[in-house]
Amino acid sequence: MAKRENRKGTEKYKRILGAAKSVFARNGFYHSRISDIAKKARVADGTIYLYFEKKDDILISLFEDEIDSFIQSLRSEIVQKQSVEEKIHCLISFQIHLLETDRDLAEVLLVELRQSNKFLKSSAIEHINEYLKLFSAVVFEGKEQGRFREDADSALLSQAIFGAIEMVSLSWLLGYRRRSVDQIADELTDLFLRGIAAVKEPSARTKSGD
Amino acid sequence: MAKRENRKGTEKYKRILGAAKSVFARNGFYHSRISDIAKKARVADGTIYLYFEKKDDILISLFEDEIDSFIQSLRSEIVQKQSVEEKIHCLISFQIHLLETDRDLAEVLLVELRQSNKFLKSSAIEHINEYLKLFSAVVFEGKEQGRFREDADSALLSQAIFGAIEMVSLSWLLGYRRRSVDQIADELTDLFLRGIAAVKEPSARTKSGD
Repeated sequence: MAKRENRKGTEKYKRILGAAKSVFARNGFYHSRISDIAKKARVADGTIYLYFEKKDDILISLFEDEIDSFIQSLRSEIVQKQSVEEKIHCLISFQIHLLETDRDLAEVLLVELRQSNKFLKSSAIEHINEYLKLFSAVVFEGKEQGRFREDADSALLSQAIFGAIEMVSLSWLLGYRRRSVDQIADELTDLFLRGIAAVKEPSARTKSGD
Repeated sequence: MAKRENRKGTEKYKRILGAAKSVFARNGFYHSRISDIAKKARVADGTIYLYFEKKDDILISLFEDEIDSFIQSLRSEIVQKQSVEEKIHCLISFQIHLLETDRDLAEVLLVELRQSNKFLKSSAIEHINEYLKLFSAVVFEGKEQGRFREDADSALLSQAIFGAIEMVSLSWLLGYRRRSVDQIADELTDLFLRGIAAVKEPSARTKSGD
């Protein structure tokens, strides 16, 4: 196990995960075989087992690896935004745009991930919590600035918006595409911002940065 | 296949689905065996195959059966509500309370269902769409009455709120329980209603004060 950990981050490790992403997205997790992944990654079947114990572990590692770099990119985007409203838009938009920027990853996250019976009980959940904390932090900031309602439960609302984005993205993947990815992001941002905005006198309301 | 269809709704069929629900919830879909379900339902293993081709079909039938009766109960609740706001609360509350009224079903819907690789491509999706139409219909009604925003996309918002409820329920199942099921329902209703409420005072929307 310790040996396996040491191989993390090597070029071959990355190549296997990249191959797994495309194989899972194409064939589905259940129907994907280790040998398909090995072939795609141009390594021997046995090599995979130097890095991963079983198929579930590839999926979980893939998830952890991707979500960590996703969180990192998102963080560097958010710090550039001035208002909490722009930050919320950035959070929502970034996740929705995964449908266009990395379709394979979106497919794996939305459809294949829950097909691993190890996933929900794995350490991967911690990474989702890390991600949700980005939302909570912005909601908290907005409350402190008096932009968002005092009584808003940051953690609960973060889950709500995450679930909303997931479901809307899943519908998009399954073929519901009456709106563009941009429009969806704007509409969800609008829903969420109105939902948590502090109620103020009209004159005190300033235009948010979109 | 036609023969199998004919057996739908019989007492034994219902018993098998009831047994499957509890077995799937306890062992997980992946680890559940037909023989476990047969034992729980007090039928011979072979009897299951008179009704279902394979394990995935049991899960999908269970889902379709349950969601249809769920939609029926929900409809009869909604018609008793006067305002569109009460109807939205009813929709949200009903789904959230599944966590308490039928924990096994909640577990199967939230965790096990996506583990069937046939599910997302099955007719079960049509039943989810039926359910989402209940939400759309209420949003549409609210728009007609001038209670909800004209520009709200009923279908998109229905997906959003459905996803939000699912994620919040999943977190609850996984152990996040800082709030009661009632409080969660109220908070989500609040978020959603504020998010789609028609803006009464036109002055609040003008940009002249910027």
